[in-house]
Amino acid sequence: MKKTLLLALVASAAVSSPLLAQARPDDTAALRDAALADTIAWDITEGLTTEVGPRLAGSEAEARARDWAVAKLKALGFANVRIESFDVPWWERGEASAEIVAPYPQPLVLTALGNSGATPAKGLKAEVIGFDSLDSLKAADPARVKGKIVFVTHRMAATQDGSPYSPVGQIRRNGPSIASNLGAAAILIRSIGTDHHRTPHTGSQNWSDGARPIPALALANPDADQLERILKRGRAVTIALKVTAKADGKRTSGNVIAEVPGRDPAAGIVLVGGHLDSWDQGTGAIDDATGVAITTAAAKRIMDAGQPLRTIRIVWFGSEEIGLFGGAAYREKHKDEKHHMLAESDFGADRVWRYQTSLAPAALPALKPLAAALAPLGIVPGGKNGDASGSDISEIQKLGVPVIELSQDGTRYFDLHHTPDDTLDKVDPAQLRQNVAAWTAMLSVVANDPADYGPVEPRAH
Amino acid sequence: MKKTLLLALVASAAVSSPLLAQARPDDTAALRDAALADTIAWDITEGLTTEVGPRLAGSEAEARARDWAVAKLKALGFANVRIESFDVPWWERGEASAEIVAPYPQPLVLTALGNSGATPAKGLKAEVIGFDSLDSLKAADPARVKGKIVFVTHRMAATQDGSPYSPVGQIRRNGPSIASNLGAAAILIRSIGTDHHRTPHTGSQNWSDGARPIPALALANPDADQLERILKRGRAVTIALKVTAKADGKRTSGNVIAEVPGRDPAAGIVLVGGHLDSWDQGTGAIDDATGVAITTAAAKRIMDAGQPLRTIRIVWFGSEEIGLFGGAAYREKHKDEKHHMLAESDFGADRVWRYQTSLAPAALPALKPLAAALAPLGIVPGGKNGDASGSDISEIQKLGVPVIELSQDGTRYFDLHHTPDDTLDKVDPAQLRQNVAAWTAMLSVVANDPADYGPVEPRAH
Repeated sequence: MKKTLLLALVASAAVSSPLLAQARPDDTAALRDAALADTIAWDITEGLTTEVGPRLAGSEAEARARDWAVAKLKALGFANVRIESFDVPWWERGEASAEIVAPYPQPLVLTALGNSGATPAKGLKAEVIGFDSLDSLKAADPARVKGKIVFVTHRMAATQDGSPYSPVGQIRRNGPSIASNLGAAAILIRSIGTDHHRTPHTGSQNWSDGARPIPALALANPDADQLERILKRGRAVTIALKVTAKADGKRTSGNVIAEVPGRDPAAGIVLVGGHLDSWDQGTGAIDDATGVAITTAAAKRIMDAGQPLRTIRIVWFGSEEIGLFGGAAYREKHKDEKHHMLAESDFGADRVWRYQTSLAPAALPALKPLAAALAPLGIVPGGKNGDASGSDISEIQKLGVPVIELSQDGTRYFDLHHTPDDTLDKVDPAQLRQNVAAWTAMLSVVANDPADYGPVEPRAH
Repeated sequence: MKKTLLLALVASAAVSSPLLAQARPDDTAALRDAALADTIAWDITEGLTTEVGPRLAGSEAEARARDWAVAKLKALGFANVRIESFDVPWWERGEASAEIVAPYPQPLVLTALGNSGATPAKGLKAEVIGFDSLDSLKAADPARVKGKIVFVTHRMAATQDGSPYSPVGQIRRNGPSIASNLGAAAILIRSIGTDHHRTPHTGSQNWSDGARPIPALALANPDADQLERILKRGRAVTIALKVTAKADGKRTSGNVIAEVPGRDPAAGIVLVGGHLDSWDQGTGAIDDATGVAITTAAAKRIMDAGQPLRTIRIVWFGSEEIGLFGGAAYREKHKDEKHHMLAESDFGADRVWRYQTSLAPAALPALKPLAAALAPLGIVPGGKNGDASGSDISEIQKLGVPVIELSQDGTRYFDLHHTPDDTLDKVDPAQLRQNVAAWTAMLSVVANDPADYGPVEPRAH
């Protein structure tokens, strides 16, 4: 009861002061603390992962997810709820199976990487050649690789900031093209992940440098361990593969957009969101139902507290996983609108521990109220100005728009990322609520602060 | 170097005192402490899971595992290494897939239970009827169940002693026959396990009470959560299934046996072991490569320290998983031999925390040296006399043979049990060594103690 009363007071204070230039610190604190009891984000996460489940870019399931999103965003009371459609290339996983034929016959658990080629219908069988890094693959003699199944292994550490993903992920992003251009029959990589389960990690990769598509697959980590052990015994290892993945033309995808209109339409848009699509193996709970849920719940709380100075635009991006198509389509369509600030949640829903910025250096002092509002949640400033980014928003960020990033704890993110294990049970409701509180505090400050955070330099991402 | 010297002294003491009736406590302590640096158990576990991998009862892989075992046991220097063959019914998993067709289309991850029937080749589609316990299924009106897909859920807690497995496992063992006799088209159960991964738990069940085989499957726990959530929304739920499991005649299985001959052939056999077969989804690391590895490593340490009073017989049982066929075959063949004591390791390789007994009450005081030898490893007496048993040894235990049970910590055992995730990375080498030390201490006492531990009553298991 007390909380409700407090919220009502906060709301009426905001509504009755239409000229108030900035959210008062005590309003922000009250909104933040009330958000620690949030149920909206859980409701969205539970609903989307249960009633839609997996929602691969361009699929009929992603279309159902857009309809689900429109209904939900309208029911929550947002304005200008709409779908902005675009086309994406279609690729489907099909089936993938692998068996060590010699010297120790046994099956291996793996999955196709995005855009993987297929084997002939009867499968392919070849000797394995192992590499302990992408560099050693790059340096390989094509005569040794030709016709073989390349295996690239690595170690990836679990860290709070997830920083190993960018360098280690090069194996997935570039390994297949390199192997193909060396004449390999197929490539297996150790999953880009930190778990020890038979749940292989898929992910995007594109054929570059004229590479011909070949089967490109990720072994579950225990299977990569196994193949390493077997290769170390020094005997020739033969693997039989069957892969039915296929690319096939274009399909429709789309972004779902909703707004909290601001008092001053000229003040620029505060864009928040995450991505609606998911890989097809899990139900896309931490990647990224929680992202759209957290940002939407926070925007709803600001809306319900009274009209903010600036318009808050919520974007549930489509087709992020297969190559940031939603981000690119958004940039193309909205590049001439004034964006005040961008912020994206796409790193799970464990507690936010840090915030980072990409603002004009002169604007940094304006963030003192943000620092004060986040500190009670255990959130500290970190990184250097310019580090803040996001996946879908990186496209419009290129044009030179300020970004604030609320960084979730990523220690267990890469246990689950892109695996069948990305399911609702992995979301901790208490940490999810801390996220909503952090985003609510951030939006309360940013959407009501008249200070400009730019200009920032346009940049290549 | 010190350890080697100590071992040599222990060994020479034993050899030079052939009439020594009992291992001296300081010999036992030295053997136990040396075993904390054991490498044999890891070597067996790593070798069997890597060079053979999955080894389903009656399969060609299980036959390769027997050959592997014979070579390994001979190389370790054991006597009377041999295979004792027997026939087992053959069942193979085939493929199993499931999809929610309505109201929220999405795939589910599941696997067939042992002896599952198949669907027609084109699959089957039916409405789901959910039950929250085996009792509620038993009480169901056949008219409501007929032609439907039964779903039985439950909660199973992770505990140190694994005690929930016996009651909760009734859902797997008896649910399929009950559902079939009620006219169900198929049965899905929540996996009998404590994890939250998309790695469903298989396990044995037999068609009883004249039940006709139907598809009988276990959903991964996140998928059971999902189906529960969807059913709670109150709309009719339809699932499409395809299952190609099949039973087909008989195949050959076998037990692999090795011995450390004792000084007194009339003193009775101390039987130790585990099972060589595994389910086909994982590589059978904790179930039960570690069991054969721990008991074999301990026996090897006793053998190397000098001839024990009693013969130690190591049995790597075949076809345990599908119904204790190796235990029954052993009983049939060896029922007339004098067995002094039985002990089996089939509960993973986390630390031993307790020992239990099934001895003649009058023999309990003879175990004081055992208690003293185990206490430094953090192992305490527990349960009541009569509780000790084992899976394969339960067959010969029925005839009235004393049993000592060294209980591993089972807290994470049912995260992995019967899943694809039962792989080598789940074995903690330090805890594995503690197991070898406990078994070495136990064998040092029991194989050299002239006291009789019987008679115990023959019992139904």
